[in-house]
Amino acid sequence: MVFLDNASTTKCYAGITDIMAKYNTTEFYNPSAPYGKAVELANEINDAKSTILKALGGTGKFIFTGSATESNNTVLLGQLNKRFKKVLVSQGEHSSIHNAIQAVRNAGFIVEEIPLTKEGTVSIEAFKQLMTKDVGLVSVIHVSNETGAINPIKELVNIAKAINPNVLFHSDGVQAFMKINVNLDDLGVDFYTISGHKIHAPKGIAGLYIRKNLKPFLIGGGQQEGLRGGTENVAGILSLKYAIDNTNIHENNVHVSNLRKLLVELLSDVDGVVVNSRMENSPYIVSIGLTDVNGETMVHALESDNILVGMGSACSSKSKGNHTLLAMGLSQKEIKGNLRVSFSAENTEEEIHLFVNKLSENLIKLKNKITAKS
Amino acid sequence: MVFLDNASTTKCYAGITDIMAKYNTTEFYNPSAPYGKAVELANEINDAKSTILKALGGTGKFIFTGSATESNNTVLLGQLNKRFKKVLVSQGEHSSIHNAIQAVRNAGFIVEEIPLTKEGTVSIEAFKQLMTKDVGLVSVIHVSNETGAINPIKELVNIAKAINPNVLFHSDGVQAFMKINVNLDDLGVDFYTISGHKIHAPKGIAGLYIRKNLKPFLIGGGQQEGLRGGTENVAGILSLKYAIDNTNIHENNVHVSNLRKLLVELLSDVDGVVVNSRMENSPYIVSIGLTDVNGETMVHALESDNILVGMGSACSSKSKGNHTLLAMGLSQKEIKGNLRVSFSAENTEEEIHLFVNKLSENLIKLKNKITAKS
Repeated sequence: MVFLDNASTTKCYAGITDIMAKYNTTEFYNPSAPYGKAVELANEINDAKSTILKALGGTGKFIFTGSATESNNTVLLGQLNKRFKKVLVSQGEHSSIHNAIQAVRNAGFIVEEIPLTKEGTVSIEAFKQLMTKDVGLVSVIHVSNETGAINPIKELVNIAKAINPNVLFHSDGVQAFMKINVNLDDLGVDFYTISGHKIHAPKGIAGLYIRKNLKPFLIGGGQQEGLRGGTENVAGILSLKYAIDNTNIHENNVHVSNLRKLLVELLSDVDGVVVNSRMENSPYIVSIGLTDVNGETMVHALESDNILVGMGSACSSKSKGNHTLLAMGLSQKEIKGNLRVSFSAENTEEEIHLFVNKLSENLIKLKNKITAKS
Repeated sequence: MVFLDNASTTKCYAGITDIMAKYNTTEFYNPSAPYGKAVELANEINDAKSTILKALGGTGKFIFTGSATESNNTVLLGQLNKRFKKVLVSQGEHSSIHNAIQAVRNAGFIVEEIPLTKEGTVSIEAFKQLMTKDVGLVSVIHVSNETGAINPIKELVNIAKAINPNVLFHSDGVQAFMKINVNLDDLGVDFYTISGHKIHAPKGIAGLYIRKNLKPFLIGGGQQEGLRGGTENVAGILSLKYAIDNTNIHENNVHVSNLRKLLVELLSDVDGVVVNSRMENSPYIVSIGLTDVNGETMVHALESDNILVGMGSACSSKSKGNHTLLAMGLSQKEIKGNLRVSFSAENTEEEIHLFVNKLSENLIKLKNKITAKS
């Protein structure tokens, strides 16, 4: 099976099976228990936090959560404060921000969406207009989960803080962390979301970087310095640490950039295909438009050829439409023809050749079907 | 290592290692993805839901969450509604309810705590007095995580619904599910919390039963019928199903009841030990009071003898005091001398004998130390 849907989830590194086994069946203790065996686990969790903070380049705090959705909700729903009136989120947010807007409005806040350029990044001009003193919270995704477009987070933070020094700036870094260079001290964000299962760690473990303070969202038994309740998912946490320790961001980025380059070159020779992602984007995600065939039809055709690709964000497939592509100005027809190809460092050039060959074959087959029907 | 702290967490069943490996490294897809391989996983998740609903004896819905804390918070913080004014919680709740009371008050609601009897169950008389028409939400733990005391949930639900038919009744069933008989249709609760890692499944997977409706607490990409956002923890979910499929509630209860009986008999011959749990309680948890030695000192002494026991709830060890034991009328001195022995079906009679022998030896050693000092 050729797996080209790594933005939806990734295969765990092989070594993670042993880690899961160890912490589920041998060192399975509750890290809050009072005996030494449990305290050892609490220390290992703290070590993992240090590893992650180092990888993030952030001098703040970090909490483990159960999903990036929880991390994003912890900020967008959990940090609302009567001291401010307005919240800004980009039009290109992941559904766990986008779909939570209504709940923020129900809580009595004004939410405005920052438009995207046709390249898929936040419009700086529009942001300058929307960013006023009464904005207390901003959320802008670092790397778009749909197109790989990289938002200029540092610039946006600077603009925001110049207008309201107390503004809380959150960025969803799920598609950025361990894929492109991330340095949170440099970016200046107050909160940053990461997820395990996008970087070869298991589902069910994620986290949130906190520069200074956090109002707890999940309230429990005082775990994680009282910032996030719930027994720590020890096996998940140490699998996440393992994934980070075993990932070379630079090497992988070079390899994946080559795959992306090859893909774009090969696709330029295929009729009926448009590439919506730019070379400035993260190399890990390439958004493709089929001009004559539905994305969904193609996904199933490719699956018959043992190739798995996505169709916009997996997380929003149950919602209607695709708000990010819509915000970039794509038509409904163009959105229907959308495919998302997303890499991991484990993909190979052979797989890219195979994908483009099979895509071409299927385009011809499916176009003929359409022609025969009409 | 003799592990007698199974109320804090349990060792995963051996078969779970293979399940985790399968869904992390082979069938690792995102169940929201559009291709058939992912749809198969979505179907497996639905099968797991059916298994759990059957085990719960409930005809409602079920969502997977990341922790029992999330499940409890989803109800206590997430189901607040301007249509009612007052919330009742028992004084014997787990910290993920107990410590969330302040947040409910901050949201503008009156919270009253239902007192416990000295046996550790909710006082029915007190509940009748507190349960008024303006109470919209009630939360009472099914089996106490401190003492194993079993609350009369059905009776409480009947009292509550007779006064306000619209009241939402939640019970935290973490220490009940798969340990004592649970039939949610019979109990009549609106919400019921369960946790994987208390029943030999991994940490990081838990759930919430929903009789009718739920206002989503985590908002994401429309997963789980829009009731709980976030990519499903497939490996955790199918491990939880495995744990349920491989647990015989009745057989285990008989075995653990025998262990409890043996423990109580043996302890009756040991000076300086009081048993705080009654035989009517769940057999899985026995709360023990040491009259002359600190619980914490004993925990460490026993660890040197390769025996692990708890000291009240692991989850509240980082909070101050022990609100459940306090509510039962125990003194601070009695609470300091508290130990919590909690079984799994994997414990043996030999382990109980060893525990009581080592407890006796250490009591003598530690008492002599205290005498020598004074």
